Order: sequence, then structure tokens, then C-alpha cells
Amino acid sequence: MARWEPDAAGRLRAAALDLYVDQGYEQTTVAEIAERAGVTARTFFRHYADKREVLFAGSDVLVARMVEATVTAPADATPLDALGRALDVAAEMFGDGHDHSSRRQRVLHDNPELLERELAKMAMLASALAGALEQRGVAPAAAEMVAEAAITVFRVGFDRWATGPGTLSLQETLHEALAQLRTVVG
Amino acid sequence: MARWEPDAAGRLRAAALDLYVDQGYEQTTVAEIAERAGVTARTFFRHYADKREVLFAGSDVLVARMVEATVTAPADATPLDALGRALDVAAEMFGDGHDHSSRRQRVLHDNPELLERELAKMAMLASALAGALEQRGVAPAAAEMVAEAAITVFRVGFDRWATGPGTLSLQETLHEALAQLRTVVG
Repeated sequence: MARWEPDAAGRLRAAALDLYVDQGYEQTTVAEIAERAGVTARTFFRHYADKREVLFAGSDVLVARMVEATVTAPADATPLDALGRALDVAAEMFGDGHDHSSRRQRVLHDNPELLERELAKMAMLASALAGALEQRGVAPAAAEMVAEAAITVFRVGFDRWATGPGTLSLQETLHEALAQLRTVVG
Repeated sequence: MARWEPDAAGRLRAAALDLYVDQGYEQTTVAEIAERAGVTARTFFRHYADKREVLFAGSDVLVARMVEATVTAPADATPLDALGRALDVAAEMFGDGHDHSSRRQRVLHDNPELLERELAKMAMLASALAGALEQRGVAPAAAEMVAEAAITVFRVGFDRWATGPGTLSLQETLHEALAQLRTVVG
């Protein structure tokens, strides 16, 4: 059985999402995901800790890139502008995958446990971005608040884009959400 | 053993929090909580579904009161002003319990599972407040965004108040957090 598997991780992710959408997240086993991807369960566990983590793969990379974009923003960028760059990086990472994101979001909305996990990931992301702003010399309390606000924009905007028809790009949807936040709060 | 227990629910809540702080949430059993409160485990389960829910008791009342404050705000109040009333109601409900809130927050921060639950409750609260704004004629997308922003303020402000020395009142801390959001986003 042992053979070289090009992008086993990617195929496992696609197989998992197919099964979660078709037959439900709760009802799907790791064995079924592995079978559909044409690999063994052992290969599954080389890539993912469990069937939940398949849905959150890449979130470390997302955090790292968004933090980097924030830290390296021009020195004269406001905190919110610096985070705007981080949102653009996120849009670049996910923007091409409307169909994937749309199906993932449906699975999340159907499973409160997954939605809680997503919220926790977003909270960690907010915290990492606040740290990035502190590196830019922003005071901790202000850094926390603006990072939380940016993540609210990200969360709401991403959900709108993923659950919508995808007519607007993710980047445009995030910019609209940010403009809306400015309007309602201003 | 069966006898009339004045405020068994309240004593169970206090006993649970004492034990969670002293010996850890994971390490505490329902039997220990009941014993410390001087009631049976059966009484515990008459009031709470499990040891996690003890920490989230009253959240339905909180949602109902915040929704009511939003819906009944003066007709000319902006969406954010209407939600400001809802925050004031929350401050009234929790403002007297700095010590309790401070210890609860410590238990939450020590247990990611509890923090996830708290985030999920806050998401439900945001959604309920968005619905309340829609009842006031606010368009759904704007209602969602301003409710999410208000809950961000509530979450950040409440945590600051509960983890801080309590020198400022909860209401003052929430007002400060809202002012800060306006500054960083404006």
C-alpha cells in the first residue's frame, strides 16, 4: 500500500469536505475520508490530528502571514491601515476558493462545535494581530481593540462572501465590511 | 435529606466557582459541588445540565434584557446608541459582582473549552441584538455589523473590568472601550 502520494493532504481535505457536505460531519469517519482520498488512515493521521482539524488546516500559516503583513506595513500606516494589509493577505490566500469556502462555511454553520472552534481560532488571530501592532509601538489596549475590530470585519466579511454568490471578490467584501464598520461606529 | 433549600441555585454557583478556582475546573466533580453547597447531586441537576453550564447560568436572561433595552430605545436613537442602552443593562446586571466575575474570568482563561463556550454565547448575543435592531428598521447587514461591534466592545470591556482591579465600574469600562473603538476605527 505504501506509495508516494502527491498532495495527500490536499486530497484528504477535499475528500473530508465532500463527505461532510454530503452525509454530515458527525456521520463521517476518518476511515471513510482516507478511503475516498485513496490513502490509508495512517496517512490521514500523518497530516491531521483528527477529523475536525482538517477544516482548520493552514490556520497557522494564515496567522503568520497576517502578522507579517501587519509588522511590515509602512511606518506611517495607522493601526487600522496596517491591519487592512493583513486582511488583504487573507483575501489573497482564500479569495480563489469560493466554492471550497462556501461548502466549509455550510459545514461550520451546521455544527455548533465547529463554529465554536472557528471563533476560538479568530480570537487567537486577534490576539496575534494585537501583538503585531504592539511591535509597531501601538499601546496594548488600543492594539487589542483595533485588532478585535479588524477580526470582527474579517469574520463577518468572510462569512458574507462565503455564504453569498461570490459576485464580489473576498477582498471587495472585506473592504465593504470595513467601510460599514466605520459608518456604524463613527 | 429532602428539605427546602433557599437559593440552592445560587449556593451551587458559588460552590462551583470556589472549587474551580481552588482545585481546577477539570478536577472538580458535580458531587463535590453539591456537597459543598449542602445539597444532593439530584438537586444540582435540577438547576444545571452539567458543571460547565453553572458558569453560564443567567445568559438567557441577559440576552432577553439586552434585546428589550435595544428594542425599546427611543425612536431617534442611532443603532449604536440603542445598543449602548443594552450595554448599560448588562453593566447593571453584572456591575455589582466584580469579585465573582473576576474569579469566573480566571477559570475561563484557564480552560480553552470554557472560553470557546463563552465566545459562542457572545456570538448568539450578537445575533439576537442584530435581530433587535432589525425590529427597529435597521437593514440586516448594518444591524449585523453594529451588533458585532457592540459585542466586541462588551467582550473586551467586560474582560478588562473583570481581570482588572475594579477601580472603574463596569459601565465606565464599557463606555471607555466604546470610545476607544470609535477612536481606532474612526
